[in-house]
Amino acid sequence: MNNFNFYNPTKIIFGKDRISELDKLIDSNAKVLVLYGQGSVKRTGVLDKVIAALGERKVVQFGGIEPNPTYTTLMKAVEIAKAEGIDFLLAVGGGSVMDGTKFIAMAISYQGKNSEDLLKPGFASKHVIHAIPLATVATLPATGSEMNSFGVISHKAAKYSVSSPLVFPQFSLLDPSITFTLPPIQVANGVVDAFVHTVEQYVTQPVDARFQDRTAEGILKTLIEIGKQTVDHPTDYDARANLVWCASNALNGLIGAGVSQDWATHLIGHELTAMFGIDHAQTLAIVLPSLWRVRKENKHAKLLQYARRVWDINEQDESTAIDLAIDRTQEFFESLGIKTKLSNYGIERDKIDDVIDALNANGMTALSETRDLGLDVSKEILNLAY
Amino acid sequence: MNNFNFYNPTKIIFGKDRISELDKLIDSNAKVLVLYGQGSVKRTGVLDKVIAALGERKVVQFGGIEPNPTYTTLMKAVEIAKAEGIDFLLAVGGGSVMDGTKFIAMAISYQGKNSEDLLKPGFASKHVIHAIPLATVATLPATGSEMNSFGVISHKAAKYSVSSPLVFPQFSLLDPSITFTLPPIQVANGVVDAFVHTVEQYVTQPVDARFQDRTAEGILKTLIEIGKQTVDHPTDYDARANLVWCASNALNGLIGAGVSQDWATHLIGHELTAMFGIDHAQTLAIVLPSLWRVRKENKHAKLLQYARRVWDINEQDESTAIDLAIDRTQEFFESLGIKTKLSNYGIERDKIDDVIDALNANGMTALSETRDLGLDVSKEILNLAY
Repeated sequence: MNNFNFYNPTKIIFGKDRISELDKLIDSNAKVLVLYGQGSVKRTGVLDKVIAALGERKVVQFGGIEPNPTYTTLMKAVEIAKAEGIDFLLAVGGGSVMDGTKFIAMAISYQGKNSEDLLKPGFASKHVIHAIPLATVATLPATGSEMNSFGVISHKAAKYSVSSPLVFPQFSLLDPSITFTLPPIQVANGVVDAFVHTVEQYVTQPVDARFQDRTAEGILKTLIEIGKQTVDHPTDYDARANLVWCASNALNGLIGAGVSQDWATHLIGHELTAMFGIDHAQTLAIVLPSLWRVRKENKHAKLLQYARRVWDINEQDESTAIDLAIDRTQEFFESLGIKTKLSNYGIERDKIDDVIDALNANGMTALSETRDLGLDVSKEILNLAY
Repeated sequence: MNNFNFYNPTKIIFGKDRISELDKLIDSNAKVLVLYGQGSVKRTGVLDKVIAALGERKVVQFGGIEPNPTYTTLMKAVEIAKAEGIDFLLAVGGGSVMDGTKFIAMAISYQGKNSEDLLKPGFASKHVIHAIPLATVATLPATGSEMNSFGVISHKAAKYSVSSPLVFPQFSLLDPSITFTLPPIQVANGVVDAFVHTVEQYVTQPVDARFQDRTAEGILKTLIEIGKQTVDHPTDYDARANLVWCASNALNGLIGAGVSQDWATHLIGHELTAMFGIDHAQTLAIVLPSLWRVRKENKHAKLLQYARRVWDINEQDESTAIDLAIDRTQEFFESLGIKTKLSNYGIERDKIDDVIDALNANGMTALSETRDLGLDVSKEILNLAY
């Protein structure tokens, strides 16, 4: 097992009918900025319940945070928060709203001249010494943002990952029943997102980290068991509750502590979102099976463990067992309604060269936990994924 | 899944050669009380390393905290801490030292007339509004105290469980290599303690909490895989590292969130420690197999899941599968050198009536997650365990 630090101070308030507890969770004198996205929380009534729970506190609302939240939009919220004397942020939404709120929490307190500096790699974790406290009411189980200190922010057609231990949510309220109204495609995306978060930290070089491996396998087996059920039967509380709690644990630091981590599927996938607007989870479903086929030798030990333990494949020949496990993974994504071929998304094959150019321009030339996934390998993966 | 709250802000610093990092982890102006037990940390050199890492800070030492730490001893540390203006506590030791340090942290700040009030059930979590910050350098993987907010304190021949969210360690430094020098029996006790912590939260009434179940199963499978290895080969770093991290996760709130919890094995076991001085983990190894045999019907669903998933028992007949799983569990404890019969510890059979009287006197008349394990059932369990 590798040496590691683990720290996660976010309090989780999990279960049915808990929104009214916001009143106890937030200081009674707080001046609260409630942040949300494109308005679904208005239609579902969740926003009304949140506002009601906040009672007599000063509350200002800021809606319109986009999927892939932009610096420009978020800085408008920063200006409002400063003008209104806001001292607490409450994100009501999915990953984009939560990610954006983390950036706002840092930018409000930031004393430097140019808030764009906060987007620079590693800048925030070094230079942000204070952030406004924040919390979330999470409406979409997928990204894990409700229980980590990361956010992905878009600015001028590029994506920036920002992080600081100061922006762990103070608490996150996870009521699976408020996710019942999500469109099926978003739930399916969430299942795939949580699944790939898990394998990025698990199908890597083995370091004999047994708790982490078994916990990752538990998340994967659960997602396989309940994935289609929760897409097809959105009001099955237990299936959805298991998805929600798995999604949080897939990216709260627990399964990644003390192990090697890959993230090549995410980084190649990011380019597909940036260039073609394909949903994040769909890009993962496109890249992962082909990446595993191309990297089968490199990841042999863990792919075999994955085949044996997650898919219960007993086929003696190890290579065949691995092939079966990769096939099953791809079939699982397809069973949720997520297409797994680049050609399914109306992309011309010759655009693959443009993706490789973009990876090159963004410095993505030595990916994976072994840093040997170069542009030639990325091209092989994308051709196989076509 | 049941509704739940989960909160665990303890930072974990895990791995080899990390004691020197204490210097970065503790405020440079802190006045530190270093607490330890019966002196093994002096013999192993761990205490010297800790003191060296604390550098120029004011450091006061307090040794002699007993196994099953007593109120009287701990209050001596409180007096010293007050007299010396201590503002940070560092526990260097196992569960008893860590538990005792949590009590000291509360008692130093407590403004009430009588610190004995802190022992009353539920008193601390309601009435303690401040506690001195504390951290641990954990030398014995077993109790989970390094990553939770509980402590068990002895006073006038009774045991009291105290708890407050204010006494989560700020950080716990877990270096598996400093546990290499533990006597084999203490390591074996630690394996059994972590194992039984896990099943008390897992072999209970099913509530479809799949992440929690799978994570519990992962801890149990890991302990079975590495238990004998880490007792017999103490310097095998990876085996010990897996024990250390499993022991923390067995009782940090994670696997117990949203599920029903039993704890009857612990509560019956506590009387055996109090009356006969049997080690805590040994009492668990005595009680658990017999409790499961007597409660086989009540726990059928989860015992069967345990047989199938943890022991990979495929025997079709469910009752036989469960019997095999219980036998294997008992054999596992015995394989570690822990005797599993009351008669192995030189106790006369007629003392069982005294244990039942003690359970009655202490109000332990309706145990388990279903509150239907009465004194008659406890007697049946202890007779079977003889």
